[in-house]
Amino acid sequence: MTFFRSRWVEPPDGIEELDPARLAPGFAAGAVACGIKESGKTDAAVVVATSERCDSALLLTPNAAAAAPIRVCRDKCDPARIRAAAVKSGNANAATGEQGMRDAIDIQSEAARALGLDPATVAVAATGKIGEALPMDNVLDGVRRASSAVRPDGGEEFATAIMTTDAFPKRCTVRCDGVTLSAQAKGAGMIQPGFATMLCFVQTDALVENPEAALRRAVEASFERITVDGQMSTNDTVLLQASGESGLPLPDGLLDAVLLQLALAIVADGEGATRVGCARVSAAADEDEAERAARAIANSPLVKTALFGRDPNWGRIAQAAGMGLVGTELPELGLDQIDAGEFASESSEVELTLGLGRGEAAAHVWFSDLGYEYVRINAEYTT
Amino acid sequence: MTFFRSRWVEPPDGIEELDPARLAPGFAAGAVACGIKESGKTDAAVVVATSERCDSALLLTPNAAAAAPIRVCRDKCDPARIRAAAVKSGNANAATGEQGMRDAIDIQSEAARALGLDPATVAVAATGKIGEALPMDNVLDGVRRASSAVRPDGGEEFATAIMTTDAFPKRCTVRCDGVTLSAQAKGAGMIQPGFATMLCFVQTDALVENPEAALRRAVEASFERITVDGQMSTNDTVLLQASGESGLPLPDGLLDAVLLQLALAIVADGEGATRVGCARVSAAADEDEAERAARAIANSPLVKTALFGRDPNWGRIAQAAGMGLVGTELPELGLDQIDAGEFASESSEVELTLGLGRGEAAAHVWFSDLGYEYVRINAEYTT
Repeated sequence: MTFFRSRWVEPPDGIEELDPARLAPGFAAGAVACGIKESGKTDAAVVVATSERCDSALLLTPNAAAAAPIRVCRDKCDPARIRAAAVKSGNANAATGEQGMRDAIDIQSEAARALGLDPATVAVAATGKIGEALPMDNVLDGVRRASSAVRPDGGEEFATAIMTTDAFPKRCTVRCDGVTLSAQAKGAGMIQPGFATMLCFVQTDALVENPEAALRRAVEASFERITVDGQMSTNDTVLLQASGESGLPLPDGLLDAVLLQLALAIVADGEGATRVGCARVSAAADEDEAERAARAIANSPLVKTALFGRDPNWGRIAQAAGMGLVGTELPELGLDQIDAGEFASESSEVELTLGLGRGEAAAHVWFSDLGYEYVRINAEYTT
Repeated sequence: MTFFRSRWVEPPDGIEELDPARLAPGFAAGAVACGIKESGKTDAAVVVATSERCDSALLLTPNAAAAAPIRVCRDKCDPARIRAAAVKSGNANAATGEQGMRDAIDIQSEAARALGLDPATVAVAATGKIGEALPMDNVLDGVRRASSAVRPDGGEEFATAIMTTDAFPKRCTVRCDGVTLSAQAKGAGMIQPGFATMLCFVQTDALVENPEAALRRAVEASFERITVDGQMSTNDTVLLQASGESGLPLPDGLLDAVLLQLALAIVADGEGATRVGCARVSAAADEDEAERAARAIANSPLVKTALFGRDPNWGRIAQAAGMGLVGTELPELGLDQIDAGEFASESSEVELTLGLGRGEAAAHVWFSDLGYEYVRINAEYTT
């Protein structure tokens, strides 16, 4: 297994990893370079269902300053019957005003035309610089060419084309109980310097009865439980497409395991990150309390620098939890309740635990450490 | 003027700066070294009203994991008639369990005995390492000696004794319209590595009718509008004492100007900080919206590293504001609404502005930048 590598992921029994270039049956993808990225790397990509049927679910960032492609997905797509996604990288088409909205609509139309689809079944997504106009002639040409270039083994090039500052591609194709599932994600922070966002595309030939419920549950346990810098992107997008061609249901835990491993890969690839921590809060009065404490710990720069510095600094954990729970009163926390011993190890995946001693509820959040490299990446990048 | 140095502070007309060693009439302070700080520097301090009358107000951290001295102040003090405060630095007496509570009560009793006061009129405060037991014999001896050492010109030594990792003392004595006001603060972050907290003590001979209202208003416009690392301390304490000896009211804006200058000094002394930013949000639908956007911007590590890197990165400001306002929808933000131009200057105090274009409400928050030094201080400190 090369994809499933985290201690926190338990893939279902009998799972098999396949070549990630090969998409799930019933899907094709393609990518080209159209000149958005100055490096000349691929930056326009399309994934499309070639199967007769395609059920889908689409989850979008709740950021109040959402980018134009997000607004187009929200206003002009039918999330339950998305057949294709047109993605560009290097420019987020965010904070681009009315022109950005027109451009996003034009990209949707162009992809729909090139693929012979109803525009309402074509999602658009973008990641990259904020506040810059798109080179639209290039982009439309790229969308056309990527649409003609789609092929069943285009998964690897699709995964590469959606990268921005990612250090490594994040993708897999897995098979389990007669079902194939392929997925591609990008992200190295909730938001990157100018290069924003977490994107994820999942294709399967399983028959998924309620794609939205399945996707929401898997996302809640994966992408919504990670933090690099606590910053929510303007462009986050997750798309699940299911062709149903296998005639079989999604094996229990398969989607969850794949999304969790992808989410942990994003944390591990966080800006300047050297290791991944997991803040586990237990014995809370209720879930909300557990959640607030875990998030406060995971987003504390003091805890994150302690993780970087291999320092089992439990005082900072007590302080952050107390801050997350303002309005209540905690019993005095001591070493009986907090264990940050793994911080001192050299392991790349470590846990800290905090027991609040007043209930049964629990929550956990994964986070990256905070080191010099984060400052270098973010301070030396200039607009 | 050497105390009032920020562009954002407007002291009342006719204000005069006096020697900060000299407290307001009716007050005395003293400090000694009792061996909490390994450096041997002063670490036990007392301030006391020698006047007949003393009205007071006491504001404490709402952190759910509040330190023992905070709990003692909350449970065993009368906030309206505090005559003295016993402060120690180098050890926060936080996350120290039942023993910590007993110790804090003993310190209160010992100071009350030494000063001949009702224990309910003696506040206790502490700042320093979290999770470590106090060397109580030393501390009680220190409290006794500091209580005997109090003198009217003990302001400077009091201000120095409450410092932990502060790079410079933060104190003043000012005179305006017949009233004298002296104040001492410490802090270099909402919380420091192990060394926690913001403390502030204010003495005046003005006649303050409603000390709590006056203090709350001034604190809301100063200490509650700053952030270094977004981390709330377990020990934050602000005490206002008014002897009324002058028979005159507090001049308008005096307390506000002093606390704001002290708060800005704390931000400027933030861990590794090189400059102070002010995030000003205007044209919001309501105050809550303006506040949420301003805080999201001020606490964004992406905005803070941009401030450090002299990068007027307005895309990050749009993203952070959008994250702060999840649940609403912003119009597309562009350069018309955001101005971060001052980021590119070499000024030590810079502003960014964001107009939301949908109302009249405004809010602002001051924040430090985030640079390599923050990581060094916090990652290399080990417990």
